[in-house]
Amino acid sequence: MTNSELITRIPQRDRRAIARAITIVENDMPETGALLRELAPRLGHAYRVGITGPPGAGKSTLTSELTKLLRSKGMTVAIIAVDPTSPFTGGALLGDRIRMQEISMDEGVYVRSMATRGSLGGLAAKAKDAADILDAAGFDYVIFETVGVGQSELDIAKAADTTAVVLVPESGDAVQAMKSGLMEIADFFVVNKSDREGADQAVRALTTILSFRITHKEDEWIPPVIKTTASKNEGIEQLFAKIEEHHAHLTKTGHLISRRLERERERVHELVEAMLRVDFWNTRRRAMLETELVQVIKHEKTSFDLARELVAASL
Amino acid sequence: MTNSELITRIPQRDRRAIARAITIVENDMPETGALLRELAPRLGHAYRVGITGPPGAGKSTLTSELTKLLRSKGMTVAIIAVDPTSPFTGGALLGDRIRMQEISMDEGVYVRSMATRGSLGGLAAKAKDAADILDAAGFDYVIFETVGVGQSELDIAKAADTTAVVLVPESGDAVQAMKSGLMEIADFFVVNKSDREGADQAVRALTTILSFRITHKEDEWIPPVIKTTASKNEGIEQLFAKIEEHHAHLTKTGHLISRRLERERERVHELVEAMLRVDFWNTRRRAMLETELVQVIKHEKTSFDLARELVAASL
Repeated sequence: MTNSELITRIPQRDRRAIARAITIVENDMPETGALLRELAPRLGHAYRVGITGPPGAGKSTLTSELTKLLRSKGMTVAIIAVDPTSPFTGGALLGDRIRMQEISMDEGVYVRSMATRGSLGGLAAKAKDAADILDAAGFDYVIFETVGVGQSELDIAKAADTTAVVLVPESGDAVQAMKSGLMEIADFFVVNKSDREGADQAVRALTTILSFRITHKEDEWIPPVIKTTASKNEGIEQLFAKIEEHHAHLTKTGHLISRRLERERERVHELVEAMLRVDFWNTRRRAMLETELVQVIKHEKTSFDLARELVAASL
Repeated sequence: MTNSELITRIPQRDRRAIARAITIVENDMPETGALLRELAPRLGHAYRVGITGPPGAGKSTLTSELTKLLRSKGMTVAIIAVDPTSPFTGGALLGDRIRMQEISMDEGVYVRSMATRGSLGGLAAKAKDAADILDAAGFDYVIFETVGVGQSELDIAKAADTTAVVLVPESGDAVQAMKSGLMEIADFFVVNKSDREGADQAVRALTTILSFRITHKEDEWIPPVIKTTASKNEGIEQLFAKIEEHHAHLTKTGHLISRRLERERERVHELVEAMLRVDFWNTRRRAMLETELVQVIKHEKTSFDLARELVAASL
C-alpha cells in the first residue's frame, strides 16, 4: 500500500491500512514523517486513556470490560497493548491474547500489540505515534494497556490524557505503587479484584497516602480511588465515569492543552536527539570509539575523556 | 573536600570522601570527569554483582545475608541500592533501611542508596560511576540491589558482571519474569522464600523454560536455578558459589572483557549524547521549540517536521 492509499483508507478505518501504518511508525520506516504529516489535520478527536499497574492486577480484563461498556454506548475503541516482550517469548502471552480475541471481533474495536523489543526507550513515543494514527482513523477512545512490569508503564502515562493505575487489594500493593513511581502518574486508582479480602482497607490506605499529597493548589485534581471486580463486570460504569470526570477537569482547567504540549515537547526532544545521534555516529567516529575503548577498560582513559574527544574531533 | 583530597582519601576507604564522590557523580557535578580520571588507575579489582527481581522477592534480605557471608570470608562489600524513588516518598522505605542498618555498622561494608529521581534514564550509568568509585576505594564486591520495579532492574544488569534474578515460589512469578525481560538478564535464578509451598515446582518450571534457550554454542553458560530462604540464612553459601562459578566462567571464556567493553561503550554513547544535547538546546532553539509547539498541538505541523526544522536551523 502506498502512503497516499494509506492516507485515504485510514480515515475509513480500513484495518489493513491501520495495521500497515502502525508497523511503519513502529519500525521507524522512512515513510513515517510523511505519513504523520498527512494525517495531522485529522487529529484531536480521540481521548487517550492509560491502564497501567503491577503484573497480575487484571489490567487486560479491565480493559476488555471497559471496551465493552464503551461499545454499548456507541463509541469506537482502539487498544494499544504495550508489551515489554522478550526476544525469547516472542510475543504477548497466550492468556492475554485469548482475552482480547473476543472483543477484537467487533468492527468498532481495534487491538494492536506493540513490543519494546529493539526499541531503546522510544516505546512511549511510538505508542503515541500509533495513537495518532488511530486518532486519524476516527476512534473515539484509544486505550494504552501495559502488559507486565517496567519503565514502559511510567512512560506510557505520558502518552495518555488520563491514566488509571490498577492495583489488587493485597496489602503491599499500595506500598509497591509508591516505590515504583506509579503514585505520580495516577489520575485515579482502581482497586480491582475487590471481591477479595482487604479491598476496603486498600482503598483507605491509598486514600490516606494520597491525602498527604494535597497541595491545596487551585484547580487541583485529587486522584479518586474506586473499586472494581472486572471479572464480574462490577464497577466498570464507575471507571468510565471517573475517566469522564477527569477529562472534564482537564478541559475546564486548561490542563489538557498543557499535557498535550508536554507530550509533543518530549516527542520533539526525542526526535531531535535521534537525528543528532544518527548524524554523529558515522563510520569514522564508530571506529575511533572501538579503538579507544580498549584503553578505557585498561583504565588508561575514562569514558568521560573519550566522549569529550569524540565530540571535539572533526570526523 | 577538594578533588585532590577525595582522591587521597577514597583509596583509604574514608566514608565521607566516598559519600561526597558518589554525590558528585549522582548529580552530574562539574568535577565528575576529573574525579573519575584520577581514580581510573585504581580500577579493576571489585567484582560487580546485580541482585534484581520483582517486588517482594526478598532482595534486601538476600543482599544482607550475602554481605554477611562475604564479610565472614574476610571480603569487603559495597552495596548500591538503586531506588526508583518518587519525589513523593522521598527515599527508600523504612523497612529496607532498617534491614540495611545492621550490616552497615560494619567497617568493611558501605551502603548507599541511589534514586532515579530526576535522572532521565541515566541511573545505570551513574550507578556504574558510583561502582567505579567504590572499586577505587578497594572494595572486593560491589552489589547493586534494585528496590521495587522498573526498567532500572534491566538497566542495572548492564552495570554488573554477574546478575542474580530473585523470584518467589508462587506460580506466576516465572511467567512474569518472562514477560518483563528478566529472563534475558539473569546469569542465574534464585528462588527465594523456598520454605514456602511450590519452591520445587518453581525451580522445575524455570529450568524447563531455560532449557528452551540453550543454543549449544561453545562456551555457553546455562543459567542455574538455586533455592534460598534468606530470612533463615539458607542457601547463601550456594548463592556465593554460583557467583564465583559465573565469574570463573566469564574469565575463562573472555566474556568478562567483552561485558566490560560493552558497559564502557554504552557509557560513552550516553555521555556523547548528553554533550550533544547540552550543545543543541541553546536559548534560541528552546525558544523556537516553544513557539512552534503550538502549531503542533493545533495539528498544523508534526513533531517530525518541527524536529527537522530545529536540526536544520543554524541557531
